[in-house]
Amino acid sequence: MEARAAIQHTFASYVRCADTGRSADLAALFAEDGVLRTDAGEATGRAAITAFLEDAKRSLAADPRGAGRIRHHVSSVYVTFPTPDEARATSYFLAVTAAGPDHWGRYRDRLARVGDEWRFIERVAAVEGHAPGSWAETRTRTGG
Amino acid sequence: MEARAAIQHTFASYVRCADTGRSADLAALFAEDGVLRTDAGEATGRAAITAFLEDAKRSLAADPRGAGRIRHHVSSVYVTFPTPDEARATSYFLAVTAAGPDHWGRYRDRLARVGDEWRFIERVAAVEGHAPGSWAETRTRTGG
Amino acid sequence: MEARAAIQHTFASYVRCADTGRSADLAALFAEDGVLRTDAGEATGRAAITAFLEDAKRSLAADPRGAGRIRHHVSSVYVTFPTPDEARATSYFLAVTAAGPDHWGRYRDRLARVGDEWRFIERVAAVEGHAPGSWAETRTRTGG
Repeated sequence: MEARAAIQHTFASYVRCADTGRSADLAALFAEDGVLRTDAGEATGRAAITAFLEDAKRSLAADPRGAGRIRHHVSSVYVTFPTPDEARATSYFLAVTAAGPDHWGRYRDRLARVGDEWRFIERVAAVEGHAPGSWAETRTRTGG
Repeated sequence: MEARAAIQHTFASYVRCADTGRSADLAALFAEDGVLRTDAGEATGRAAITAFLEDAKRSLAADPRGAGRIRHHVSSVYVTFPTPDEARATSYFLAVTAAGPDHWGRYRDRLARVGDEWRFIERVAAVEGHAPGSWAETRTRTGG
Repeated sequence: MEARAAIQHTFASYVRCADTGRSADLAALFAEDGVLRTDAGEATGRAAITAFLEDAKRSLAADPRGAGRIRHHVSSVYVTFPTPDEARATSYFLAVTAAGPDHWGRYRDRLARVGDEWRFIERVAAVEGHAPGSWAETRTRTGG
């Protein structure tokens, strides 16, 4: 159960970094050669992940609907351990802007223990729906 | 706190099974004579719970609005222990489909410790609202 | 991690008290001279917090849209410890009524350990958006 709590902290740290625009800190939650896969593209390694997030940040800041501030409400975190130092997790997110729920979906993760911490080996963020006129909709349309 | 974490894992397992349609695995989270009560009906014992969930799965798959995929976002889990081996819990769910929040409400649970795990003695799932035209609305109307 | 779990329990207790209208029990989750700051006003000390919550309860009960019942879905709880007996936390809430998501935002907290429990020194509840015609919108408009 201790490991599950530590993984929850990694997830909460990810949200904090994502929602406050701290791209390099977020990338540091990944293993050196970790992979982030999203519907808008993917990135391998911390430098690429940082660059990918900076791009998403610019897109969000430029959104005409005032969606500049985003909050990822993450819940229903389900974790299993193939080995004591490896974890698989599934969780849900509801991304909320000032205008309300913007898009929602699922994270599927592989993590590894590094000392007392758990880092992402791979995070797959799959959007499963979005509000009409949302930032997510615009971003998908422009391929950005 | 260890027991609270174990109960959170039971809740997360319930969500995984419910949202991926693994009815028998979900029923196994209940005690042998456990009870699931919902607005659409109730079931006592694992075989009846499995059958009840299979029915809900068919209803969801047939939904014209494409609500076939559902995700239960569970949060605000509050747990108390009348005795070390019994728990009472209240939590909230927001059931989200591709179209957005579909219905929402509250779980009220009684659980019992079985070894290292916690199983449902009774889960009451009460819907407290639903979106216009949602799957939940249709299902209530047809009594199904 | 034990401390994080205890803080999660304080948060869940806050939600239970808030959503069932137990104002004095909620105030008891604060330190004697604790502070609750919200967009609708602030209160210092348990007696003032209790009175503030009773006022919010009356406003909610009188809401014409039937929003009398509210549920705070709290997620993405991020906690750090400046010292072993002090914590800083950020979390998100989505306040849901029978009509759906009503308002949403962020808690920013300072907590202190008192024996095995964690109490609020300061909770700042910032609404970051609300639905058109929501209870939160009405309340902001009337200054209440």
